[in-house]
Amino acid sequence: MIKEVYNYYFSRDKALAKKLRSVLGYTPRRLSLYKLAFYHKSMNDAQTQNNQHNERLEYLGDSILSTIVAEYLFRKYPNKNEGFLTKMRSKIVKRKTLNNLAREMGLDIILSAYSQGRMSKSMMGNAFEALVGAIYLEKGFPKACDYMINEVLLKHLNIHELEMMDDNFKSQLLEWGQKNNINVDYRLLSKYKQDKRDRFKVAVVVGGDEVANADDFNKKAAEQLASEMALVKLNISNNE
Amino acid sequence: MIKEVYNYYFSRDKALAKKLRSVLGYTPRRLSLYKLAFYHKSMNDAQTQNNQHNERLEYLGDSILSTIVAEYLFRKYPNKNEGFLTKMRSKIVKRKTLNNLAREMGLDIILSAYSQGRMSKSMMGNAFEALVGAIYLEKGFPKACDYMINEVLLKHLNIHELEMMDDNFKSQLLEWGQKNNINVDYRLLSKYKQDKRDRFKVAVVVGGDEVANADDFNKKAAEQLASEMALVKLNISNNE
Repeated sequence: MIKEVYNYYFSRDKALAKKLRSVLGYTPRRLSLYKLAFYHKSMNDAQTQNNQHNERLEYLGDSILSTIVAEYLFRKYPNKNEGFLTKMRSKIVKRKTLNNLAREMGLDIILSAYSQGRMSKSMMGNAFEALVGAIYLEKGFPKACDYMINEVLLKHLNIHELEMMDDNFKSQLLEWGQKNNINVDYRLLSKYKQDKRDRFKVAVVVGGDEVANADDFNKKAAEQLASEMALVKLNISNNE
Repeated sequence: MIKEVYNYYFSRDKALAKKLRSVLGYTPRRLSLYKLAFYHKSMNDAQTQNNQHNERLEYLGDSILSTIVAEYLFRKYPNKNEGFLTKMRSKIVKRKTLNNLAREMGLDIILSAYSQGRMSKSMMGNAFEALVGAIYLEKGFPKACDYMINEVLLKHLNIHELEMMDDNFKSQLLEWGQKNNINVDYRLLSKYKQDKRDRFKVAVVVGGDEVANADDFNKKAAEQLASEMALVKLNISNNE
């Protein structure tokens, strides 16, 4: 019996190692680490290792990935300012992009074997970040960085497309208003102090109705956030 | 004349190198990189190098620092969950902590020489992050990581104190209410969908008046944020 269980798990491990090899292009040495990357917290069953799941690895990988991308963009765009770099980074590390990257790499195939069909969209991005954590712990930063840039980002990400992508929610909303002949206005609801800095609360008023409002230390950022919420509420699709 | 200018700048560089040596404990090889770390964007004068300032370095350093701290906490607390780690990290990388760290290290002395007296509080934290960027670009990740942990964080940061620090704004506000016999209530203003996820708008009602409100995907996080805003508005000091 024990031998059968052992064989069952051993063959499962072998199958995972094989799948990982085809996804990653190398055979991981610390397989248990990579295995953990695919255990979502919703899978609290016999499959998980002592009820451990991938949240800690995800926390680590999220940070590592963000730094790898930050450094990549810093070197790729030597003449761009910090605002551009920050914006590009957030386009790359956002959930939607990571979910797509994970699918491009084929992580969905591995993940679906573990999730027994109960897959949610964000599980993909989570597993991707956790995998970055595992790669980092096995290889160290310089090698993980090289690997992520050359084997993942440059292969599966269209940087030029991301550069062009319009995430200016305010202009999207204004354009929609013009096209449909509906008035879109921004109204400052309040200005107050937080941490000794000014903070702004801004409302988006569409056709006379307040549709959404948002706060930020920066008025334009509050308008952006409120516009993003308004686009969702009004079901206006953007070009992402 | 040219020789005099040259000597002037050369002696300034020598003085900076000396100061940096006493702050960092080593003599930087790429001095221009470290110099740049102290150029705040408000110093657009003859002192800055071709009007370059430290924002790009700060963008890089901010990310590197966050990852160094993430990894340090990941290893220091092997049994803590991702929520605890994220909270601890945000306590360490927040502006206030970085400003204090920068002062502890003695960066204020270098910075004040550059800013000609026009020092703002956030310039300290900015310069600190930019310095981390410079250290990373000169030394690479593993060495920068070792240096930041052993020579900066472990020397100047009281991790235990940070662990104990109460940043639970809701409980602070509730305690204040109990002590002063004023009713503190939380009210769900709205629940809506954003990116197909539920988002909550929560108000804090103090003594019957709505004092602040905030949005988040997580109801408790919205309550925290609204509480933080209420504490500021009501001028209730916390124990930080």
